[in-house]
Amino acid sequence: MDLDAIAAISRLKYRHVRALDTKQWDLFADTLTPTAEATYGEYLQFESRDAFVQFMQETLGPHVLTEHRCGHPEIDVKGRTATGVWMLSDLVLIPEHDKLLRGSSVYTDEYQLCEDGAWRISSTTYKRTFELSYSLKDLPSFKLTAPGWMPPPADADEG
Amino acid sequence: MDLDAIAAISRLKYRHVRALDTKQWDLFADTLTPTAEATYGEYLQFESRDAFVQFMQETLGPHVLTEHRCGHPEIDVKGRTATGVWMLSDLVLIPEHDKLLRGSSVYTDEYQLCEDGAWRISSTTYKRTFELSYSLKDLPSFKLTAPGWMPPPADADEG
Amino acid sequence: MDLDAIAAISRLKYRHVRALDTKQWDLFADTLTPTAEATYGEYLQFESRDAFVQFMQETLGPHVLTEHRCGHPEIDVKGRTATGVWMLSDLVLIPEHDKLLRGSSVYTDEYQLCEDGAWRISSTTYKRTFELSYSLKDLPSFKLTAPGWMPPPADADEG
Repeated sequence: MDLDAIAAISRLKYRHVRALDTKQWDLFADTLTPTAEATYGEYLQFESRDAFVQFMQETLGPHVLTEHRCGHPEIDVKGRTATGVWMLSDLVLIPEHDKLLRGSSVYTDEYQLCEDGAWRISSTTYKRTFELSYSLKDLPSFKLTAPGWMPPPADADEG
Repeated sequence: MDLDAIAAISRLKYRHVRALDTKQWDLFADTLTPTAEATYGEYLQFESRDAFVQFMQETLGPHVLTEHRCGHPEIDVKGRTATGVWMLSDLVLIPEHDKLLRGSSVYTDEYQLCEDGAWRISSTTYKRTFELSYSLKDLPSFKLTAPGWMPPPADADEG
Repeated sequence: MDLDAIAAISRLKYRHVRALDTKQWDLFADTLTPTAEATYGEYLQFESRDAFVQFMQETLGPHVLTEHRCGHPEIDVKGRTATGVWMLSDLVLIPEHDKLLRGSSVYTDEYQLCEDGAWRISSTTYKRTFELSYSLKDLPSFKLTAPGWMPPPADADEG
């Protein structure tokens, strides 16, 4: 196995998901190729990086708290391209709408080694194994004890 | 450290758990040696691969939605055998029985490098750090927003 | 990348967290340098290993069940020191107080390669992306179906 490439691709994926949960959209965009496609389940599909990033930025504003955790990487490298299968667990909280969503998915990604020497995601697709939701009104004592992430200044962490 | 063997064993574990959550039982069986033993807590013990796989297949049918996530690998390789400690988080949903189970465990595994060059699990044991359950009736607004995994055709993904 | 050092540091982190959730405080202490500092959010700060370990041991007794899961490692090694960013998901249950806490954090760690050849944590800090709590009284059917971890004898697992 090409352990160096696998380590670099894993780290790319971790940076991608950290940027998502900490709402660092420039950092998030830089983990994708310009022509990257994304398919989340049956209803959410994006044909380019810019469309994907714009949707995430508009949808996942400061009022939406997210936790995406990826694990179980099964990565195959072939020259300057690679594929990866991951398992995802995600939790989405929208306290002002009393909404909690919890999902579980199988991710199938494609990666490219770009001209600048960095691996980027060229395609990302997930298929749900399940997804559930309920209203936080069902938990009358529910409270946020830490108020949610405040994104750092734009130039603070783009590494 | 023998990073290649550790990577191969990690990948074996990930394939094992992905097969479990996506109900691909032939793929699941192929991650085990024929004489593999499995012990899950105090009450569930299996003396062979076939008994273990049969139980899982019968118990975890399409009406049972599962999410098993393994992390924190501590793997030691000694020639053609190895041991591994993992932490498990699992979620089991049986919507038709309004049942939710959530557990947390320490896994202790043994692995063998087989004649065909593949590592397989020869023994897997977990000890709960806790396990909890509650009825989904306690969450009146609970709903499945994605209906649960449909296994692919038998020959679609056995890789 | 220095894959051997990254693997050793990852394994250190996994042993640290396993010791925490299985309440093996000598094993936990041995993952830290004597001068290690720890900062958990805004309110919990420790200036030394001994103060940190003592607090954990006193606060997380057998009546407190915890699950800490770290993933998404982004580790940079520079000679005998290293830094690491991780994502944490944690669940804390205190059944006798009907309390459930669930948090999500970004960890920033520093590591040192010590004289005995082992990497240890010299600084660990997390910032919450969110933290929530609710009372288990909101789930009337809640029950523990495995009663919680019993720490092994002091000399059983310190490896």
